[in-house]
Amino acid sequence: MRPTNNKKKKPVILVTNDDGIMAPGIRHLIKLMSSLGEVVVVAPDKPQSGMGHAITITTPLRLEHIVINEKQVEYSCSGTPVDCVKLAVNKILHKKPDLLVSGINHGSNSSINVIYSGTMSAAVEGSIENIPSIGFSLLDYSFDTDFHPSDKFMLAIAAKVLKNGLPERTCLNVNIPITKKIKGVKVCRQAHAYWADEYDERKDPHHNKYYWLTGEFVNDDKGKDTDEWALKNGYISVVPVQYDFTAHHAISKLKNLEE
Amino acid sequence: MRPTNNKKKKPVILVTNDDGIMAPGIRHLIKLMSSLGEVVVVAPDKPQSGMGHAITITTPLRLEHIVINEKQVEYSCSGTPVDCVKLAVNKILHKKPDLLVSGINHGSNSSINVIYSGTMSAAVEGSIENIPSIGFSLLDYSFDTDFHPSDKFMLAIAAKVLKNGLPERTCLNVNIPITKKIKGVKVCRQAHAYWADEYDERKDPHHNKYYWLTGEFVNDDKGKDTDEWALKNGYISVVPVQYDFTAHHAISKLKNLEE
Repeated sequence: MRPTNNKKKKPVILVTNDDGIMAPGIRHLIKLMSSLGEVVVVAPDKPQSGMGHAITITTPLRLEHIVINEKQVEYSCSGTPVDCVKLAVNKILHKKPDLLVSGINHGSNSSINVIYSGTMSAAVEGSIENIPSIGFSLLDYSFDTDFHPSDKFMLAIAAKVLKNGLPERTCLNVNIPITKKIKGVKVCRQAHAYWADEYDERKDPHHNKYYWLTGEFVNDDKGKDTDEWALKNGYISVVPVQYDFTAHHAISKLKNLEE
Repeated sequence: MRPTNNKKKKPVILVTNDDGIMAPGIRHLIKLMSSLGEVVVVAPDKPQSGMGHAITITTPLRLEHIVINEKQVEYSCSGTPVDCVKLAVNKILHKKPDLLVSGINHGSNSSINVIYSGTMSAAVEGSIENIPSIGFSLLDYSFDTDFHPSDKFMLAIAAKVLKNGLPERTCLNVNIPITKKIKGVKVCRQAHAYWADEYDERKDPHHNKYYWLTGEFVNDDKGKDTDEWALKNGYISVVPVQYDFTAHHAISKLKNLEE
C-alpha cells in the first residue's frame, strides 16, 4: 500500500544552468523554485555557454558539495550542463526529480540559438530521461539585469508543468523579453532564423593568428506564430522542443538513396 | 554571363570529423572523396567526441595549415566540429562548399546518439548553412577497423547528394554496420532508444571521488522503419536529420500555458 502522506510531500526540483552555479540567473531561479518544492542544485563550476548537447567522455567528472543556503542541497560539477543532469539523477538524487529547470540564462535561446545552448541541452537531456523539463532564458546578457518582471509568469509555467506534466518526449524553451511590462505568454514554433557568422581575426604577441566568433542574428521569418514575433511584441515565448531529430517529411523524398 | 567552363570545374568537398584530423576514419574518407571532387579538410586537432553542437566562445580559435598530401588543403582547428565548419566556410574557403562530409566516425551515431555526436553536429551545422551535408559513422570503435566494405555505398550516397542536393533544412546521418557483406541502404527514422547511464566511481590518489560516464544502450523500439533495425539486419541506415527542434504536434496541447 502506498503511504498516505505522499500527497503532502514537496516535489523535488532539480535546478541547473550553463552560466555556472554562481551566476545571478540561477540564484534567482533557485529562490523562485523554493516556493514550489524541495530544490536540489547541480550546476557547472564554470561558464558552459554554447556547449550544445556536449557530454564529457575523455576526462573524469568531479562533483563538489557547496553550502550557500542550508535550505537546499547544492553541488558544482566540472562538466557540461548535460553532465550535471546525468550526475544529479544517478549520483545525487538516485531517482528522477519531479521537475527540472535550467537557467535563468543570461541571453536569448530563442530560434536557432536552441541548438547551441547549454541551458536548453540540460532541459533536453531531462526530457530524454522522462523528467518534465523547462529552460528559462532572459534576453539580456548583463549580469546586473532585473529578473523580477517575469517572476509570476515563470512560477505559473513551472507550477502548471509540475501539475500536468508535458507531452511525451518534449521539454519547454521559455524566453523572456527585456521589459518591465510583460504582456503575457505565447506558445510558439521556433523562427527560421540564423547567424551570419563573422570572425574577429587578431594576432597574438608571437604574431600567430587567432579568431573570435562573432556575427549577426538574422531573422527573415515574419510568422506571427514564432518565438521571435512573441518576444518582439512583449510576450514570453514558450516553444515545445523535441529530441527526435528525424526529418520525417524528408524520408519519402530520399528513397532514391536506397539500394 | 556565366563562364562556360563551370560544368568542368570539380565540386569542392569539405571534409571534417570529431575524432581528430589524424584519425583513420577521416583519412579514409578523404581518399574516397578525392575521387568525387576537390577536397578541403578542416578538422579538430584533438578528439572531440561527444561534443554535441558545441561552439567555442570563451577562448580564441586557432587554425594550423598541415601538409600531408599535396593534393588537398588541410587545416587542423583547436575548436569543436561546429567551429571547424564555421571557420572553413568563413576563413578558408570564403564560400560554401558543394558538399560537406563528416566522419567516418569510429562508433555508432544512430538513434539517440545523434544528439551527442560531434560528427553529426558538423553535418547539422552544414545544413544550417545551406550546404548539402552528410555524416558517416561505422559501428566499430576500433582504430584498426576495415572501412572498405562500405566504400561503394558511401561513394554512391555522396555522388547522389552532390547531383541532387537534399531536402531543405536537412542533412543525412549515415551509419554503417560491421560486416563484410553489406546488404544495401535503407532510408529510416531514428529509433526511440536511450542510454541507461551509469557512472564508474573512483578515488584519485588524494582520496577525492571522480566519475567516468558509462552505460548501456537500450532499444525498445522494434520498428522495421528504424535505423537500429536496418543496422541489425546488415543494411546501411540513412536518417534525414533536421535542425528545427520545435515539437510542432505539441503546440496545440500546451495552449493552457498561455496568458
